[in-house]
Amino acid sequence: WKPACFFQAMQQTATHHAASWGYDFDTLLAAGQVWVLSRLRIRFDDFPTPNETAVIRTWPKGISQRVFFLRDFEFRRPDGRSLAVATSAWLLIDPAARRILRPQTLGVDVPDNGGLTALAEPLEKIAMPDDLPEALAVQAGYSAVDMMGHVNNARYVEWVCDTIPFDRYRSGRLRRLQINYLNETRPGERLLLRAGEHDGQWLVYGQNLDSSQRAFEAVAAF
Amino acid sequence: WKPACFFQAMQQTATHHAASWGYDFDTLLAAGQVWVLSRLRIRFDDFPTPNETAVIRTWPKGISQRVFFLRDFEFRRPDGRSLAVATSAWLLIDPAARRILRPQTLGVDVPDNGGLTALAEPLEKIAMPDDLPEALAVQAGYSAVDMMGHVNNARYVEWVCDTIPFDRYRSGRLRRLQINYLNETRPGERLLLRAGEHDGQWLVYGQNLDSSQRAFEAVAAF
Repeated sequence: WKPACFFQAMQQTATHHAASWGYDFDTLLAAGQVWVLSRLRIRFDDFPTPNETAVIRTWPKGISQRVFFLRDFEFRRPDGRSLAVATSAWLLIDPAARRILRPQTLGVDVPDNGGLTALAEPLEKIAMPDDLPEALAVQAGYSAVDMMGHVNNARYVEWVCDTIPFDRYRSGRLRRLQINYLNETRPGERLLLRAGEHDGQWLVYGQNLDSSQRAFEAVAAF
Repeated sequence: WKPACFFQAMQQTATHHAASWGYDFDTLLAAGQVWVLSRLRIRFDDFPTPNETAVIRTWPKGISQRVFFLRDFEFRRPDGRSLAVATSAWLLIDPAARRILRPQTLGVDVPDNGGLTALAEPLEKIAMPDDLPEALAVQAGYSAVDMMGHVNNARYVEWVCDTIPFDRYRSGRLRRLQINYLNETRPGERLLLRAGEHDGQWLVYGQNLDSSQRAFEAVAAF
């Protein structure tokens, strides 16, 4: 498993869990609503080998700052040993108007599970210098874009990981990753990723060269 | 499913099948042998939706041109309708010496299954002009490289698909794809993909800018 595998699994598990209480993707879309991942922070405890089984649990953790649906995740081996814990914040969006909806628009109270927590850390803005060196140019080609015409969350994680020199992976395991998704990247658009080390952390942001917006910010620690 | 999903599934299924008769990856590697995909040709009949189940069958189809292990694949829906059929050619390689081994080195006769065929088409060299326009620059970053330090077969397919304009996907479904893997791409190396239309087919090749070798050639038809 690589870091992006955890993101793919979280996306699928969250979708599956929401569908299990009636809020599947098609039902939401018919009501003019979609959930989009806004921020995610994960602590990696171990990386499974390709054929290992991971047991994933996920649960809603209430509403934050009026607009964020919080959701936590835990990944364990079948024997209970931790693989990773994560916390995430999702926005409810009107995809036609491209605006953020209040959580009440969903029409159901999402349980807060009494504050049950997998990763008890806040999902803050990332302090990001503007002068990081150029690291990688990427394009949102066909392979990066999902059915909604958006770059898949896990693909951004691949891009973040691709800015990190191979030496770094050889000398130590990735321990933590936070990524804040700021502005969507549309099909065909190009991003310039800038990255560098600050205070022992690897900082990355992606500048959309076609829209001039910042697409995402991320911080990784080894 | 996108085209690369079929390639990921084929790789896993082939590995699983070889392991089922004792030739798992670790056993082969301990004997100084690995199988690498050399050529693959696939006809797509339909693309499953994200949660659909595909039943995959694969079988060896004998030896060709003294060095190629042939292997066919078929993808079906549970009700039997075809999703895709493919034929592939694999080389047995000594990873330390980086040279091709004769199939006899494997030490077992791989059954030829009486010529049972999923896609009855030869795996030929691809006629490729040298003057295709530049389409995409990519780098073999961390996300593209597997445990062996090679770019994953499916990632090349993503790159091929990323050279094709979005308009083409909107106006018609991808019907056929052949990819010939020519020279390995090592971690960090950059490829320049050149692509264009010739006689109704989409041709792509990847030039390794660091080694000056051609990494792969591919042909797609809609």
